[in-house]
Amino acid sequence: MGNTFGHLFRITTFGESHGGGVGVVIDGCPPQLEITAEEIQFELDRRRPGQSKITTPRKEADTCEILSGVFEGKTLGTPISILVRNKDTRPQDYDEMAVKYRPSHADATYDAKYGIRNWQGGGRSSARETIGRVAAGAIAKKILRQVANVEVISYVKRIKDLEGIVDPNTVTLEQVESNIVRCPDEECANRMIELIEQTGRQGDSIGGVVECVARNVPKGLGEPVFDKLEADLAKAVMSLPASKGFEIGSGFAGTLLTGIEHNDEFYIDENGEIRTVTNRSGGIQGGISNGENIILRVAFKPTATIRKEQKTVTREGEETLLAAKGRHDPCVLSRAVPMVEAMVALVLCDHLLRHHGQCQVL
Amino acid sequence: MGNTFGHLFRITTFGESHGGGVGVVIDGCPPQLEITAEEIQFELDRRRPGQSKITTPRKEADTCEILSGVFEGKTLGTPISILVRNKDTRPQDYDEMAVKYRPSHADATYDAKYGIRNWQGGGRSSARETIGRVAAGAIAKKILRQVANVEVISYVKRIKDLEGIVDPNTVTLEQVESNIVRCPDEECANRMIELIEQTGRQGDSIGGVVECVARNVPKGLGEPVFDKLEADLAKAVMSLPASKGFEIGSGFAGTLLTGIEHNDEFYIDENGEIRTVTNRSGGIQGGISNGENIILRVAFKPTATIRKEQKTVTREGEETLLAAKGRHDPCVLSRAVPMVEAMVALVLCDHLLRHHGQCQVL
Amino acid sequence: MGNTFGHLFRITTFGESHGGGVGVVIDGCPPQLEITAEEIQFELDRRRPGQSKITTPRKEADTCEILSGVFEGKTLGTPISILVRNKDTRPQDYDEMAVKYRPSHADATYDAKYGIRNWQGGGRSSARETIGRVAAGAIAKKILRQVANVEVISYVKRIKDLEGIVDPNTVTLEQVESNIVRCPDEECANRMIELIEQTGRQGDSIGGVVECVARNVPKGLGEPVFDKLEADLAKAVMSLPASKGFEIGSGFAGTLLTGIEHNDEFYIDENGEIRTVTNRSGGIQGGISNGENIILRVAFKPTATIRKEQKTVTREGEETLLAAKGRHDPCVLSRAVPMVEAMVALVLCDHLLRHHGQCQVL
Amino acid sequence: MGNTFGHLFRITTFGESHGGGVGVVIDGCPPQLEITAEEIQFELDRRRPGQSKITTPRKEADTCEILSGVFEGKTLGTPISILVRNKDTRPQDYDEMAVKYRPSHADATYDAKYGIRNWQGGGRSSARETIGRVAAGAIAKKILRQVANVEVISYVKRIKDLEGIVDPNTVTLEQVESNIVRCPDEECANRMIELIEQTGRQGDSIGGVVECVARNVPKGLGEPVFDKLEADLAKAVMSLPASKGFEIGSGFAGTLLTGIEHNDEFYIDENGEIRTVTNRSGGIQGGISNGENIILRVAFKPTATIRKEQKTVTREGEETLLAAKGRHDPCVLSRAVPMVEAMVALVLCDHLLRHHGQCQVL
Repeated sequence: MGNTFGHLFRITTFGESHGGGVGVVIDGCPPQLEITAEEIQFELDRRRPGQSKITTPRKEADTCEILSGVFEGKTLGTPISILVRNKDTRPQDYDEMAVKYRPSHADATYDAKYGIRNWQGGGRSSARETIGRVAAGAIAKKILRQVANVEVISYVKRIKDLEGIVDPNTVTLEQVESNIVRCPDEECANRMIELIEQTGRQGDSIGGVVECVARNVPKGLGEPVFDKLEADLAKAVMSLPASKGFEIGSGFAGTLLTGIEHNDEFYIDENGEIRTVTNRSGGIQGGISNGENIILRVAFKPTATIRKEQKTVTREGEETLLAAKGRHDPCVLSRAVPMVEAMVALVLCDHLLRHHGQCQVL
Repeated sequence: MGNTFGHLFRITTFGESHGGGVGVVIDGCPPQLEITAEEIQFELDRRRPGQSKITTPRKEADTCEILSGVFEGKTLGTPISILVRNKDTRPQDYDEMAVKYRPSHADATYDAKYGIRNWQGGGRSSARETIGRVAAGAIAKKILRQVANVEVISYVKRIKDLEGIVDPNTVTLEQVESNIVRCPDEECANRMIELIEQTGRQGDSIGGVVECVARNVPKGLGEPVFDKLEADLAKAVMSLPASKGFEIGSGFAGTLLTGIEHNDEFYIDENGEIRTVTNRSGGIQGGISNGENIILRVAFKPTATIRKEQKTVTREGEETLLAAKGRHDPCVLSRAVPMVEAMVALVLCDHLLRHHGQCQVL
Repeated sequence: MGNTFGHLFRITTFGESHGGGVGVVIDGCPPQLEITAEEIQFELDRRRPGQSKITTPRKEADTCEILSGVFEGKTLGTPISILVRNKDTRPQDYDEMAVKYRPSHADATYDAKYGIRNWQGGGRSSARETIGRVAAGAIAKKILRQVANVEVISYVKRIKDLEGIVDPNTVTLEQVESNIVRCPDEECANRMIELIEQTGRQGDSIGGVVECVARNVPKGLGEPVFDKLEADLAKAVMSLPASKGFEIGSGFAGTLLTGIEHNDEFYIDENGEIRTVTNRSGGIQGGISNGENIILRVAFKPTATIRKEQKTVTREGEETLLAAKGRHDPCVLSRAVPMVEAMVALVLCDHLLRHHGQCQVL
Repeated sequence: MGNTFGHLFRITTFGESHGGGVGVVIDGCPPQLEITAEEIQFELDRRRPGQSKITTPRKEADTCEILSGVFEGKTLGTPISILVRNKDTRPQDYDEMAVKYRPSHADATYDAKYGIRNWQGGGRSSARETIGRVAAGAIAKKILRQVANVEVISYVKRIKDLEGIVDPNTVTLEQVESNIVRCPDEECANRMIELIEQTGRQGDSIGGVVECVARNVPKGLGEPVFDKLEADLAKAVMSLPASKGFEIGSGFAGTLLTGIEHNDEFYIDENGEIRTVTNRSGGIQGGISNGENIILRVAFKPTATIRKEQKTVTREGEETLLAAKGRHDPCVLSRAVPMVEAMVALVLCDHLLRHHGQCQVL
């Protein structure tokens, strides 16, 4: 029962890596929004495996079909259902995984919980599940842009120990998309790509940090005390596969400062608006957006599925060895970028609708 | 509408720092659980300001009353309502805050969202709101202990740059409670206390990191894909006042390892159970508990309210200066320990009930 | 976990007939609404036992206290908690009920579900639980009136076979309150009162039908397909104690008409508004309000607790006889009137906020 | 945001009468349940238009495809997505409805709420939306049967003023399916069929009452005070198109009895079980199932779409006349039977899982 996310802008995803397909039902989308399958496809293509030499070579076309909720190019206010058929299944690559648990993957825990598991390629725990999220995120981003010119932009901040220098206040989508690793620090990006390729050749994997900024977020979003904006954002991104950490604004580093060093002093800007001089709060104070840029970071561990041999056990409880066959993804960070964007957009859109109501917002 | 947390074990908190009182309604508590006001009071006393020389000197007795849901010492399965009356109000300390916004506090955002605010002591954004959480957490911890012998233990891991050495696999409540800063590394604790006192004398504040371990958690808790256990834990603790970051298991540091270094290899233990050699996953894989210890960390920024003078603005939009009067809390970390424990216990208890049902679990 | 109702305007009730008290937490109330304890008390007094000679003689003062969420006479946008202390307990009246189940009461099912029960006066299944609903309903009614001049008026339509003649389109609160049975057909009301008194003297009880009208409801409220307005209204009133049936508009009688007889033809009124000539739809079409008066009816069975002797069983499974001691309520209909009003107001207010958002509605 | 129903067994439906298709996502289905597309298709065929001479002649094959959640014939515990493609569209039949509102249909209210509407055949308000419900209901019924041998059986009780004589305690699915109107009183069924055919020839429509019984329901289901079993059942069936009334047990007629006449006396049966002599409560007391048969009735108004000419208005606000072209359904009752069964099964299954947990119930 954990496959629904959001309150007023609410998505339900479905689908395993193998089977009929994966997708999403979006409930609560404002009516009369212009949306096309192409706009959704654009984001899916950013998420797609095989999009560049540094991702898994699986060729998933991931073509989406809008099944409902859109009529003559406009949303109806009814549920939007989007389906992406599964293709390119190579179950033989997964034969061994039917009996052997991949270390640090969800194989063993799914079996412990459900007593059954689609062992073909990860089943429900596959990153393929995020297709539904990214498709819904494309719509959320459009609503945010249209209602309040909100921009949500993510990028790779760090791969292993290679950290890019990026200004979240000015970075553009074009800069992010200018290289295949999606780190808008060109020099660092090149070194990242090199490291990923080298790691892939070794059959190993690496992780890193994705940073995300949301600009022009209206003041007043967030519902204390449990649905604080940072709490919902944390849940959103920590529900992504492989995420291990979340921070907002100053984050863990902020704990090294004193109060007088950390506090964001207020001033009145040229438009008479209350603003903060610094932004260690990351755009949220007391769980509510304050109009400054929302800035957060997500830690992604190195991918669990690797070609190196590891000790593991079988379903039947015998110790054995496993080295993943076929294709593996040495680093998911470049593909995690649109996923983080989607989750952040979904949270902001849900809170925007809580504030304005579904049919009043546009 | 953000004042309810949980699905089957569901709490709703209420109350501002000033007014009639604060409290909680707990819905879904299993029937026939033995519980007394004293057991709840024990946890409230750990949260209470004025409990030691390093916390705010406010003397809040915080005596709880169980209004409903318990009959002849046992829970009825009906909502348990717990009330703590407000006392010791010194509104004159807050006069200035009626017009001036405290930097990095929730004053300005509450005003932006609601257009009104109880300016006496933080209102709803006061840490006093966590009384309801801690009271509910006391019950959740009892259920967890009784059903599966689950232990949830938090402690101060770091204050500013002073980091204690603690083994989460063996630490005990007694060790945590053995000093007033709740860092079970005695030598480090003494330095932390000294730093807090010195900071308090300067009218400044400091933050740090609370670590939490949950031991004996049954396998199979967590609901992919959005209500993954780590996602719900992240939301839970990121809804606490002053939290800026969350990590589970290897967290941000895990991103510096490669897959082969990070993966937790499986083995079969002496009882025939599937176990992991290492625990970089922090007890959760694919969003589901795997039976290993759940280990997480929460970053708390330095308290916003300080006695040092800062630039700020008034409600009317004029720039001014503010130095908080009266009492201030130089470091909330020791009091955050029972809050983190409570939130983690609430999440685990909710997922336990999702797994077993309210009336079947005990 | 069934003690919360509503999505954006969300109430959680707590409390048993005996114990500390009963009450409600209201989450999502718009900020800056002027509200006083007196306004809430007015509705509680209409619900109170002992208010007239035809209700149970229990003297419950039912004085409410607002614990939170209101500051200087205005709502804060934070949870409003309202408490009514329990008094006048005569547990000796209930001694027998500790062991014997009252027929058609909730005693046996609570024991079957929870294995424990507060046997003093019905515990959680007591009509006393509705105090929280009526208190919250008072606030919902005020919001509805203020936002859109919506009036919610209920009255006794029928007691046993005595049916009043009332025009829902013009009936006023004053007319409803003009007699103690709350049937705004004076002549019929007198016969109802006589019948209730006679039934009470016999130790028996009677039921009937409450009708409710909501006028000036804006077009567009209701969320197809599951949260249709009539579906939420049905759930709301069917959650009241002793309710056995619900109908909207033409209801069961409408099934005797043909389509051409039943359909509400459209016309354009003098303001250019689309209206219907008749109102067999009861103000809702396709789950969405159409601007006509919402009219519904609720069937209440005769009260289960009677002084006449009945066959029953004990907790230990032995057959026995039971005649309730002390006070009994021969007819709850007059007191059900404010309960139905409250539930209808809560549903409408929730849907109003879904449409407009909490902070935008006033 | 009203397209999701249920808490632990939770369905989300999607789709309009025209467009890609309609369907459902079922979240929370217990793992390892054997289920086939054929079992679901069986129920869809009972719901399908064109199944007999008394329903609309539209030939909808309504073939379902399971997209996810089932692997090698067994459920995975992950979301089950079921899709039925739309076919046989005759948009020319609906041209007039693009501009003219059908009286007592949802055309006008959808336009008022969303400002846009799929005017081809009712869009989201079409009975076609119930395909998703009926598909999910097929799975819910299987779970109920498997866990506790619960049987859910509906039938036509009354068409206009023709009322069948049926014993809910003994009626079988075979008897219900023995005639096309699904009234297991053969003699009455024949008269009903005749009346429907005659009404259809006149271009008019008729309604009636569907009765539903659930047998072998375990004691203890239902969550007071708002999620009482009868409250959830009422919401479930009142969310079906064209429903105008709901009653449980004695219903509206029960209000004509006195307490001593209405109360269900208890006795101990031959197995030592607490039972009731009569069943005016309809299997639920205090919101919780008591082990007796759950019996409820739903009133369905005559279908709104008729071929007779009626006064109406256009979107542009001009008065006009409308007579529906093409096919119309003179009576939906026989097709409403599987819909009511599905909704009742969904509620019972949800409460069963609340009681036992998703993964523990089978």
